[in-house]
Amino acid sequence: MNKGNSAGNPVRVVLDAMGGDIAPTNEVAGAILAMGLLGSSVQLIVVGQENLLLPILRQENIADKVELLHAPDVIAMGDEPASIVKTRTESSLYKGLALLRDGKADAFVSAGNTGAVMATATLMLGRIPGVGRPTIGSFFPTQTGRQTLVVDVGANVDSKPKFLYDYAVMGEIYSRLILGIPEPSVGLLNVGEESSKGTEVAREAFQLLTHAPLNFVGNVEGRDILSGGVDVVVCDGFEGNIVLKFAESVLGFLKSRFTTFANRSLLNKLIVGAFKPVLKTVLKDMDYQEYGGVPLLGVNGVIIIGHGSSSPLAISNMIVRAVEVVRADVNGNIQQALGKPAANTIE
Amino acid sequence: MNKGNSAGNPVRVVLDAMGGDIAPTNEVAGAILAMGLLGSSVQLIVVGQENLLLPILRQENIADKVELLHAPDVIAMGDEPASIVKTRTESSLYKGLALLRDGKADAFVSAGNTGAVMATATLMLGRIPGVGRPTIGSFFPTQTGRQTLVVDVGANVDSKPKFLYDYAVMGEIYSRLILGIPEPSVGLLNVGEESSKGTEVAREAFQLLTHAPLNFVGNVEGRDILSGGVDVVVCDGFEGNIVLKFAESVLGFLKSRFTTFANRSLLNKLIVGAFKPVLKTVLKDMDYQEYGGVPLLGVNGVIIIGHGSSSPLAISNMIVRAVEVVRADVNGNIQQALGKPAANTIE
Repeated sequence: MNKGNSAGNPVRVVLDAMGGDIAPTNEVAGAILAMGLLGSSVQLIVVGQENLLLPILRQENIADKVELLHAPDVIAMGDEPASIVKTRTESSLYKGLALLRDGKADAFVSAGNTGAVMATATLMLGRIPGVGRPTIGSFFPTQTGRQTLVVDVGANVDSKPKFLYDYAVMGEIYSRLILGIPEPSVGLLNVGEESSKGTEVAREAFQLLTHAPLNFVGNVEGRDILSGGVDVVVCDGFEGNIVLKFAESVLGFLKSRFTTFANRSLLNKLIVGAFKPVLKTVLKDMDYQEYGGVPLLGVNGVIIIGHGSSSPLAISNMIVRAVEVVRADVNGNIQQALGKPAANTIE
Repeated sequence: MNKGNSAGNPVRVVLDAMGGDIAPTNEVAGAILAMGLLGSSVQLIVVGQENLLLPILRQENIADKVELLHAPDVIAMGDEPASIVKTRTESSLYKGLALLRDGKADAFVSAGNTGAVMATATLMLGRIPGVGRPTIGSFFPTQTGRQTLVVDVGANVDSKPKFLYDYAVMGEIYSRLILGIPEPSVGLLNVGEESSKGTEVAREAFQLLTHAPLNFVGNVEGRDILSGGVDVVVCDGFEGNIVLKFAESVLGFLKSRFTTFANRSLLNKLIVGAFKPVLKTVLKDMDYQEYGGVPLLGVNGVIIIGHGSSSPLAISNMIVRAVEVVRADVNGNIQQALGKPAANTIE
């Protein structure tokens, strides 16, 4: 386990340069942005195909500022996650994670195949002691401007109550240490407020969470995600993924509606055109592709995962986030909270 | 079982006049609208407190055009559903449903406590033979303008695979007979397209649905609800309710965002003010309170349920919808599809 990193040493961040849809262009552009922001507090290790990367790194005058690790194989979005650790050891994913496993790097950042990153990282690095299942959280915009962290959003389905308990603890730690919320409120996603509501798993998780050493506010409903009334929303990855993908589709739905309206007449077109900048401002944080990545929590290593279509800004945000997670020792805090026998007996 | 209603006889619709938040005002206003539309094809039976209703019916000159059934007791939104059938036999809910049970009416319409309507209707009228669990569907707006029927949205959690199969069959019949879609496509809400994806229940339901006599298009994801690519989306009430409540909150989220933007400056206020009519037009069908009710499917009687805050127009839509469901013999079709031994052996 990496015990955090003193402020003096640069944090060594591995960037999977072959992960995203527009790799390695966006990855390299994001690396340049991040280095401008972080200066000597980061040491980037770029992993990918040398013949592609070296000319770009040279052209951008950063070939001597980053480390380059050649990885001839590229994992595609559709590749089967389970077999990578055995059959794709020449990929940027495997070779990058091996640096973490061998203590040669502190964090790993990828905009690639999420399932592949999760499965391979879990197999290569193992879980933090006490964690039932590693999980992926995601951020939702809210009315208040503050973001809601929903966890899990698809890493696991059919989660046991204890897994939901773990998501709550890990989400709370992330929200407190990284988002800087003093005492994050934690809610259990359900179909009603009463403790008797919901599935058998939800009802058992409710009971576990009432004994958790965190600010558990009880059940919350689908409408509470966007209201901003709760900081961390805990759920199984089945409903978490469904609601995340629904949320991701809202912006496209709205755009399509405005386009249909605009196409009805020239006047409409002018009105919508004039209003477009306002729409962009108001709906800016509904664009999930611009988000700076989400954490894979519970794996024994710092992993930040991004959308396949991550922009250079999003890649840069992911690198900055990775450095913050290492410096705050999120994983050490998770082990403290879940690795102790007292916490395990709750199961 | 009501075998439908020949076009000649008026359909006898019971209106729970005490159900909604603004009862009986909105209920009576809705009744007047519906009678204007339906003329002699509907016979309304208004159930509620006579002392409240009679003056309004007289004032509106419809006291002789509707039947009035006195029910002194009123079910509140917070009342416990399970006990109503035993302890609240003087309520408009109980007395109204008794008319259906006794063959004195064809349909029941209420904007009251949804859980109470569902539990009481199921206990008093029973299930259609072959139906595992009665279910509630809801309509989502889509990019194409066509609505998606999502079923179940909260009637049942921890649904067995056979229940999901039943939701699919009932939703398909409703979509075909009432929404007029020739061969409605049916999708199973899941976290990925492959049949191996999702919870154990989802995977089993997938297998059942591949053998269903309907246009099953496989798994769909959260993003497919608003896209309009599929007509009926089948899911357990746990995730269905979560995604419905999330969807219901989107309009409020957007309004709050525009208000925040408007409050930043006088110019912003003017811009948003000028654009408001466009917003209203474009987002109109995201206002779930204006919807004309949703069907309770699988109960041996025609029941249409509305939002507590249903407008007079919504109440009127619910009455019109009830007449359509009776005329199309939706319940007879459901019994045909699920009541046969052949369909049951799939379980």
